[in-house]
Amino acid sequence: MGIVRVASFGISIDGYSAGPGQDLEHPLGVGGEALFAWFLPTHTWSAVHGGDGGETGVDDDFARRGFENVGAWIIGRNMFGPVRGPWPDETWKGWWGDDPPFHTPVFVLTHYPRVPVVMQGGTTFHFIGSGIDVALARAREAADGRDVRIGGGGATIRAYLRAGLVDEMHLAVVPSLLGSGEALFYEMNLLELGYEVRQTAATERATHLIVERRSTRGRRE
Amino acid sequence: MGIVRVASFGISIDGYSAGPGQDLEHPLGVGGEALFAWFLPTHTWSAVHGGDGGETGVDDDFARRGFENVGAWIIGRNMFGPVRGPWPDETWKGWWGDDPPFHTPVFVLTHYPRVPVVMQGGTTFHFIGSGIDVALARAREAADGRDVRIGGGGATIRAYLRAGLVDEMHLAVVPSLLGSGEALFYEMNLLELGYEVRQTAATERATHLIVERRSTRGRRE
Repeated sequence: MGIVRVASFGISIDGYSAGPGQDLEHPLGVGGEALFAWFLPTHTWSAVHGGDGGETGVDDDFARRGFENVGAWIIGRNMFGPVRGPWPDETWKGWWGDDPPFHTPVFVLTHYPRVPVVMQGGTTFHFIGSGIDVALARAREAADGRDVRIGGGGATIRAYLRAGLVDEMHLAVVPSLLGSGEALFYEMNLLELGYEVRQTAATERATHLIVERRSTRGRRE
Repeated sequence: MGIVRVASFGISIDGYSAGPGQDLEHPLGVGGEALFAWFLPTHTWSAVHGGDGGETGVDDDFARRGFENVGAWIIGRNMFGPVRGPWPDETWKGWWGDDPPFHTPVFVLTHYPRVPVVMQGGTTFHFIGSGIDVALARAREAADGRDVRIGGGGATIRAYLRAGLVDEMHLAVVPSLLGSGEALFYEMNLLELGYEVRQTAATERATHLIVERRSTRGRRE
């Protein structure tokens, strides 16, 4: 059976997973692109877009692993786009163009359901208005034994962490300051939630950590 | 003229500069020793105690720099010891034995002044009950043109950062979770306070950052 994973999730040294002021021009908030400075140069990110460029190495190893054995994604509505409140129409189809990098069903948490959107390359956006448990049940079913990846943003990841539903999380801590924004760890005690650091690796661009629930390890071995 | 520096200040991935429950048995709080896992093996730390062992390399370079050109220290009372409230007597003289690693005057912030304590090796503890500005003025005078190092703990460093009095800060981010404790960045926007990351270096044990006030750079060049 697959596990529920967060992967390639960037946070700044001061603990923010996105900068302030997210909008159409700043999908990651102001300054938030620094969180991807380790990811965008990788071979994996190039290959997701059909390219053959990019760098290999430790950063790429972690990036690649984030896409391996993933059968479905869950993302929050703010990761899906800048539209807030009721959908004005059906035109917004994500930040990622006609062929998004997911290539699986993607379950979008939202208070405003809409009909599914079928994209190129195997990505279909499903809109779930009935909460994180329903979204996970739907994603597990769609993943059919593979992993479910919780994509983000921070609020979505925090909700699944607090509910004890994340088995493994890969954090990429980047040596930058964002000053303010979405604080991943705010009032959330990962040790009390049963997490421990299983693996670390540092590069010039990021310190990578695999954080795992103690109960997960036994389940996988 | 010397600058005001924080150096070798460890924080966990989840942003804590000490664990919870500081007391006589846990000077760094429960789990807080993880914050020093990069520091204790260094040659610098060995040399501070008169030894000749320890490792050289990037971690050691940062550790050594923390002691160079320091003419005075400022520390908070909780870094000085576990005693809270009025001093019951004069017996507590710090965590560090007869020959503390400072070898300079050390100004201890406290609401309960007491007479100075002269230790071996050049360390004298002065107790300052009149606030961070007075402590800094005294320390600058004692440093006589060399740097003033703000030692810690987190509350003391935050007070000096918020007041705009820290010129440079070396953070060592260790790949560990503490879960709770003293949160260095809580409700403090380092970008707004004028700080930027000037230098980074990653090792297996820590990601080192030099954070500097923009105004400092011009002053030093």
